[in-house]
Amino acid sequence: MITDVTSPRLASKQKTEKSRLEIGSNQLEKLQVIEAKALQDAYKDVSPNFAKHVIEYAFGDILSRPALDYQTREMITIAALTAMGATNQLKLHMQGALNLGIHSREIADIIILVGAYSGFPSMANATNALKEVLNERK
Amino acid sequence: MITDVTSPRLASKQKTEKSRLEIGSNQLEKLQVIEAKALQDAYKDVSPNFAKHVIEYAFGDILSRPALDYQTREMITIAALTAMGATNQLKLHMQGALNLGIHSREIADIIILVGAYSGFPSMANATNALKEVLNERK
Amino acid sequence: MITDVTSPRLASKQKTEKSRLEIGSNQLEKLQVIEAKALQDAYKDVSPNFAKHVIEYAFGDILSRPALDYQTREMITIAALTAMGATNQLKLHMQGALNLGIHSREIADIIILVGAYSGFPSMANATNALKEVLNERK
Amino acid sequence: MITDVTSPRLASKQKTEKSRLEIGSNQLEKLQVIEAKALQDAYKDVSPNFAKHVIEYAFGDILSRPALDYQTREMITIAALTAMGATNQLKLHMQGALNLGIHSREIADIIILVGAYSGFPSMANATNALKEVLNERK
Amino acid sequence: MITDVTSPRLASKQKTEKSRLEIGSNQLEKLQVIEAKALQDAYKDVSPNFAKHVIEYAFGDILSRPALDYQTREMITIAALTAMGATNQLKLHMQGALNLGIHSREIADIIILVGAYSGFPSMANATNALKEVLNERK
Amino acid sequence: MITDVTSPRLASKQKTEKSRLEIGSNQLEKLQVIEAKALQDAYKDVSPNFAKHVIEYAFGDILSRPALDYQTREMITIAALTAMGATNQLKLHMQGALNLGIHSREIADIIILVGAYSGFPSMANATNALKEVLNERK
Repeated sequence: MITDVTSPRLASKQKTEKSRLEIGSNQLEKLQVIEAKALQDAYKDVSPNFAKHVIEYAFGDILSRPALDYQTREMITIAALTAMGATNQLKLHMQGALNLGIHSREIADIIILVGAYSGFPSMANATNALKEVLNERK
Repeated sequence: MITDVTSPRLASKQKTEKSRLEIGSNQLEKLQVIEAKALQDAYKDVSPNFAKHVIEYAFGDILSRPALDYQTREMITIAALTAMGATNQLKLHMQGALNLGIHSREIADIIILVGAYSGFPSMANATNALKEVLNERK
Repeated sequence: MITDVTSPRLASKQKTEKSRLEIGSNQLEKLQVIEAKALQDAYKDVSPNFAKHVIEYAFGDILSRPALDYQTREMITIAALTAMGATNQLKLHMQGALNLGIHSREIADIIILVGAYSGFPSMANATNALKEVLNERK
Repeated sequence: MITDVTSPRLASKQKTEKSRLEIGSNQLEKLQVIEAKALQDAYKDVSPNFAKHVIEYAFGDILSRPALDYQTREMITIAALTAMGATNQLKLHMQGALNLGIHSREIADIIILVGAYSGFPSMANATNALKEVLNERK
Repeated sequence: MITDVTSPRLASKQKTEKSRLEIGSNQLEKLQVIEAKALQDAYKDVSPNFAKHVIEYAFGDILSRPALDYQTREMITIAALTAMGATNQLKLHMQGALNLGIHSREIADIIILVGAYSGFPSMANATNALKEVLNERK
Repeated sequence: MITDVTSPRLASKQKTEKSRLEIGSNQLEKLQVIEAKALQDAYKDVSPNFAKHVIEYAFGDILSRPALDYQTREMITIAALTAMGATNQLKLHMQGALNLGIHSREIADIIILVGAYSGFPSMANATNALKEVLNERK
């Protein structure tokens, strides 16, 4: 590819264009639970664009935003997923949070706090998810 | 009342017993949005126990727990309420968070993060709630 | 219409066929909040079949079933709608329940019980709905 | 049964009366996933009226309505169930849609579209459901 | 512990203070599904306060309230959990309701009624839960 | 800006990079309800990135995908938002669908179909939303 790049704006566009997938892949892999390529391979026959949107938007545009520090981002993610009862994704992010050094006790406390808003069943299901994740890590 | 209190355990029981309502009232009033007594008066004819449970459990037992620092508690609250679409309570806690010095930009960022999990409608509704709250504060 | 009806089965079929709308209309009107014909008129241009399904199925097939006594049916309805946060329909059924002699205190207690499952925001919203309904009735 | 049927209205009533269960059964069996009688047998001890309402109302009154063409009905069903996270029913209708010739790629695209509204967890869960259904069909 | 208790108010405070956990434990064990101590042991490492809040608030403060008779409380619980799709907790309370003498047919009828509000998928999932519970009890 | 673009790949990257906001803006404006710039202006103080993500992802990446024809996309959107009870966004898309020539009767039929899955309250709320939108258009 031969390009005479004389504009910093084009330089940043090139970087940005290439990076949504890269940024998202890096962010996903910080959780140390699944590799971006593995996610893409798992779904390329079923839904070719699924993994692309997850990595580019959810992990690239949103989860990698530096506006909130990384610990806060993970705790907020766990709060939202607990309230929603999204157990599969909750366990994924619990693994990620623990890998990043967030203490399981903090996760337990987030769940109890959220339970006042989303009710005792959601609190119980999320606490069970945490228990399963901790067992898997032994 | 005459009691010979020789047990520290009884001393703490007395403190705890009297304090669930007090602790909860103090915590509620930190939001600087509504006074505990006003809440109780508003509902005493309709549902005598409603305000009691809200203050004793939600604000007393749960929201006042020191396990997470107060900023984190408020941000997690906003995250859960955004995911749940609980607009009334969301606006209340947005007011409280702003009164406690959390920047509106942080709240906006929490909403965008949660929106990846609970969808664009919830993200839009919560952003609108923030806009209304900021307008009310002008 | 001339028919030689010699079969009890046909007789019951005629009764059933004619009655789904009638049974549903009678059940709806027991709430004493809205008349079946008014409901049908309100929606006949927008969605001709909407009122028909609401009256025939929801009120006819389901709400009029004698399996549970009528008080229990109303209390279960209020419980489900509280848990779901379906405020519009909740107020309708609160009006109906009060018209049928269920005490507002019982409704308040149902809401507090359900709130342990669906969380404090739903408990607050439903209690507010009850307060509004009681004010409208003064 | 001897009836002197001189009224076309009665003729159509007889047809309608007998047909809610028949119409519903035919519609259910178009999915080619389960037979109406099997559904009824599975639940007749636990909940005698359950299968009746599912077949008569959901499949009879609603899913068989010709207002929308059959492909559209299936796609809307998949959209709603994806948004609701109703995985069991979603897999049933995915099987039915595929049996009726809707391409799996179209289903994947519906899920991605709905995911913008109901969030990435619902999009992931529905895509996983599609993957499982496709594996079952190999 | 030596105390000269001359105040009935203190006497009742002592009773109340000690009893939230006791009252809750008694209420939980009426379901005859799990013992309070077993619940606490199961979660004491993962989330030390989880079981305490469940027992003290959900079962102690809320579920043991005599305002509604015990049968009604169980039926309302089943209604709310059906509407919410909270299958784990629903099965627990179904077991408890059956242990307390509520007939499975009543539970089936509650589910069908709630299904008109929360939709056929929730009705199907709850009916399936009932079927599984009844099978476990054979 | 001077660039020697000799690579078709770079040419398409430039097009893509510049276009997510453009593509999204065009798609949003097809609804003929609000202009992209107006949306951005409305939220730039409250949440600077909100409108960007809505336009780039929801309308750019997702709603403009040609995989499903445009009518189908709108009908699926209405189905999902009805099931979710997202009334604000539902009214927006109802306006858009009507502007694009979809008949109100089709929208009414989608709502009735979805109501079998998400329940009668959601069916009623969506039908009311349609009624309000049609009134606004007179």
